[in-house]
Amino acid sequence: MSARRATASSERLEELRRRLGTIADLQAVLSVLGWDQQTQMPEAASDLRAEQVATVSRIAHEHATSEEIGALLDALEGEVDPGSLEGALVRIARRDYDRSVCLPASLVEETARVTSLAEPAWVEARERADWAIFAPHLERIVELRRRAAEAYGFEDHPLDPLIDLYEPGMTRERLSEIFAVIAERLVPMVRAVAEIEDDCDAALRGPFDEAGQEAFAREVVGRFGYDWTRGRLDRAVHPFCTSFGVDDVRITTRFEPEYLPTALFGILHEAGHGLYEQGIDRELVRLPLADGVSLGVHESQSRLWENLVGRSWRFWQAFYPRLCEIFPAQLRGVDLETFYRAINRSAPTPIRVEADELTYNLHVFLRFEIEASVIDGSLPVARIPEAWNAMMEDLLGVVPADDAEGALQDIHWSGGSFGYFPTYAVGNVLSVQLYETAVAAHPEIEEEMERGQFGTLHGWLREAVYRHGRRWDPDELITRATGRPLDPEPYLSYLETKYGELYDFD
Amino acid sequence: MSARRATASSERLEELRRRLGTIADLQAVLSVLGWDQQTQMPEAASDLRAEQVATVSRIAHEHATSEEIGALLDALEGEVDPGSLEGALVRIARRDYDRSVCLPASLVEETARVTSLAEPAWVEARERADWAIFAPHLERIVELRRRAAEAYGFEDHPLDPLIDLYEPGMTRERLSEIFAVIAERLVPMVRAVAEIEDDCDAALRGPFDEAGQEAFAREVVGRFGYDWTRGRLDRAVHPFCTSFGVDDVRITTRFEPEYLPTALFGILHEAGHGLYEQGIDRELVRLPLADGVSLGVHESQSRLWENLVGRSWRFWQAFYPRLCEIFPAQLRGVDLETFYRAINRSAPTPIRVEADELTYNLHVFLRFEIEASVIDGSLPVARIPEAWNAMMEDLLGVVPADDAEGALQDIHWSGGSFGYFPTYAVGNVLSVQLYETAVAAHPEIEEEMERGQFGTLHGWLREAVYRHGRRWDPDELITRATGRPLDPEPYLSYLETKYGELYDFD
Repeated sequence: MSARRATASSERLEELRRRLGTIADLQAVLSVLGWDQQTQMPEAASDLRAEQVATVSRIAHEHATSEEIGALLDALEGEVDPGSLEGALVRIARRDYDRSVCLPASLVEETARVTSLAEPAWVEARERADWAIFAPHLERIVELRRRAAEAYGFEDHPLDPLIDLYEPGMTRERLSEIFAVIAERLVPMVRAVAEIEDDCDAALRGPFDEAGQEAFAREVVGRFGYDWTRGRLDRAVHPFCTSFGVDDVRITTRFEPEYLPTALFGILHEAGHGLYEQGIDRELVRLPLADGVSLGVHESQSRLWENLVGRSWRFWQAFYPRLCEIFPAQLRGVDLETFYRAINRSAPTPIRVEADELTYNLHVFLRFEIEASVIDGSLPVARIPEAWNAMMEDLLGVVPADDAEGALQDIHWSGGSFGYFPTYAVGNVLSVQLYETAVAAHPEIEEEMERGQFGTLHGWLREAVYRHGRRWDPDELITRATGRPLDPEPYLSYLETKYGELYDFD
Repeated sequence: MSARRATASSERLEELRRRLGTIADLQAVLSVLGWDQQTQMPEAASDLRAEQVATVSRIAHEHATSEEIGALLDALEGEVDPGSLEGALVRIARRDYDRSVCLPASLVEETARVTSLAEPAWVEARERADWAIFAPHLERIVELRRRAAEAYGFEDHPLDPLIDLYEPGMTRERLSEIFAVIAERLVPMVRAVAEIEDDCDAALRGPFDEAGQEAFAREVVGRFGYDWTRGRLDRAVHPFCTSFGVDDVRITTRFEPEYLPTALFGILHEAGHGLYEQGIDRELVRLPLADGVSLGVHESQSRLWENLVGRSWRFWQAFYPRLCEIFPAQLRGVDLETFYRAINRSAPTPIRVEADELTYNLHVFLRFEIEASVIDGSLPVARIPEAWNAMMEDLLGVVPADDAEGALQDIHWSGGSFGYFPTYAVGNVLSVQLYETAVAAHPEIEEEMERGQFGTLHGWLREAVYRHGRRWDPDELITRATGRPLDPEPYLSYLETKYGELYDFD
């Protein structure tokens, strides 16, 4: 490249960075508004806040779809080295740009309108356990998501481009294969466990006062490596983690004095998301690269810290004495083994959010099958509850008492989120694949854990996953980190070993 | 007006409202970001937040200075009835627009750069009590504010357009006249009080635990009429009140366990600002009219609720028993009279933020005189401390030990705020003028107060002041409310009566 062309190119890159920085700032501001709304905002301010969010969203969309960005990308695509950071920046900026411009404004607006009506309808339908209240809304949403899939474009199945929004590169076909393997191995285990009489979680029933729960969780999460000078913990009805940039990553939780696991594992889970966001390289700041690479990889980190670490025997060897110090009366006479069994108790339930490690992915499988059939038109919306209940019985051996604890339990579809559920399963699978690779490379990780130390594990994850943000696509990131793409085998072996020991059914 | 012209006009109004709504939303978002920064944000996030604020500020400025708004205003000025709400809207939008466009971008940028360097220099200068560290920065700031005054335009004095930014319609000349009257009457009283031995505020020294202080203040402020479903109270190092719209008006405070008045009167003060913001008419929402009409009128409300109500004998007849219930040990043996004298103790101090009702406006007078002379070039920056100390001795009979408690005590000038100080004095004067008008119209206000009720006072203020936002300019608003413009007489009589009784020097 001539010196003059190189200068023009570097000026274009500078201009692209400047424009992407503005978009990143506006998205961060939307996250601040959302966090405030869910944790601080006075109750009466909803309408006011909706206007503010709508205004910033509109301006962010105007910036994200500007012709200038399109022109800069057109020019830069022939100029940057695809393997360089700039190459990744141009590739990801192109993907975001194309997604932003390819949906007709009328479709975006109609989807916003329809989903804003669907959510209260879903709330009412669930309250009354009446699918018929929600069905007409869902039919319109399905139609709109199908039109979105057509606008995005797909080769094989209309769910593919919707999955790709959350999990770049993933397809319905590949997920079907993975879920088939998972179901084949897990369903017999779930049956075996369900037959064993077991009521060992009495130790987890409270009251456990909030201050004690919070002190313990803050201590643990700090040991994980979550940096409290760049984060905070607040109360929220529906807990979440949000990032305004690597220096401001906030987690939330809901305390239940009567049931210890809700906040405890909830905080470890959100802190896993937070560790990912806090670990992104500073050179990616204010670029679209400074984000988790996919929801599945993000969830792998919440699940890794919640389950592989937080529900492990080694972890509690380190921390159970401390928990007993904080709650001496509640845990008197509860030995470590009893506590460990209680937090790992498995029992099929029709409710996904109450599901344990062993059964969770079967709940996801069910939703994935149903949304694929609904989106491609092979299953009418009216017949979802019937299909739901049948599959629930096949997979988990339980039948929901009504649609409120069946097909109406989740909020996701009312907001138009199709293709989102599978990322939970991807996260569970990847959490084990990543964890076992880390331990194979650094066996001292598990000895450190017994001493309440996590430096080696956190350092490995930061180096292998966190720091890269969206620089590599999920398959490449996971292959670079573990030597192969997503593989359910470690996940299945882990569950077989863990639950085989716990329930002694092998 | 023909039907066709009327339609075009109403479309223009609609378009103006839409554009002003966007600007109002962006300003509210900046307030959310500021509130979060001062009350919630993790310490490490300052740089990140600065980028977000800069981006939203830049976009807000682009919207506020758009040629389309200028053209809409040009067309509408001949079309709307000046006495109507639309007339007020066009008038205020024009004022804001002209102010936004009349400063050259280079001046705005240089002012931002210079003040961002001046603030840390001021912090260091104050720490070391060394005027020379701050002086070169202040010289540049004075030069930039003089250029701003020229850009805004003025007839008589360069401080006039700077005062007008905060107090529309007010001038240096008019303030000089008011301050002359105030000083003439107050200086002898301050001298008389200073001669009386008095150390009666021991009752206010703690420890008073935060939870008790907060519970009491929340109860009082709720009785005032502050709507907690549209507000909240948080901790901040430098307390403030901020509004994101009538449905989200938040106050902050700083608790000092060792000194009761800090948080108590601080919360009553901020709640006064909050009552004003919460009381603005809903039809003004998302318009530039939905704001306090001036800083002076705003301050009149914080001062009214803090001093005229919160430091009155009637108020404490109602609330002192409740305070004693919350702090029985601390207030044992302290009768109401002792407590009332303690919270109204007057003693000259060189520090403005520690000044009492009697001496406060003399501190403001001093700053006003100095900034007027500095801006018009008659006082060189290097000679400010000398002028400061001499005037302090004349007015208050005290001399600062060093410049840290003299000319370096306030942050305002380091941020370029010239013409801001006088609004504190305007607020003090207006607080009495408005309060006495309310009581004259509704003598039951003071009986209600003795029973801890404030409905009539709050209702009168809402009707006379709060609901109108910026619809009428300050002089018109005050004349409509009290029958005459700003008048220091009620304020002076009030202080003479109150301190005459307290110190028995009459």
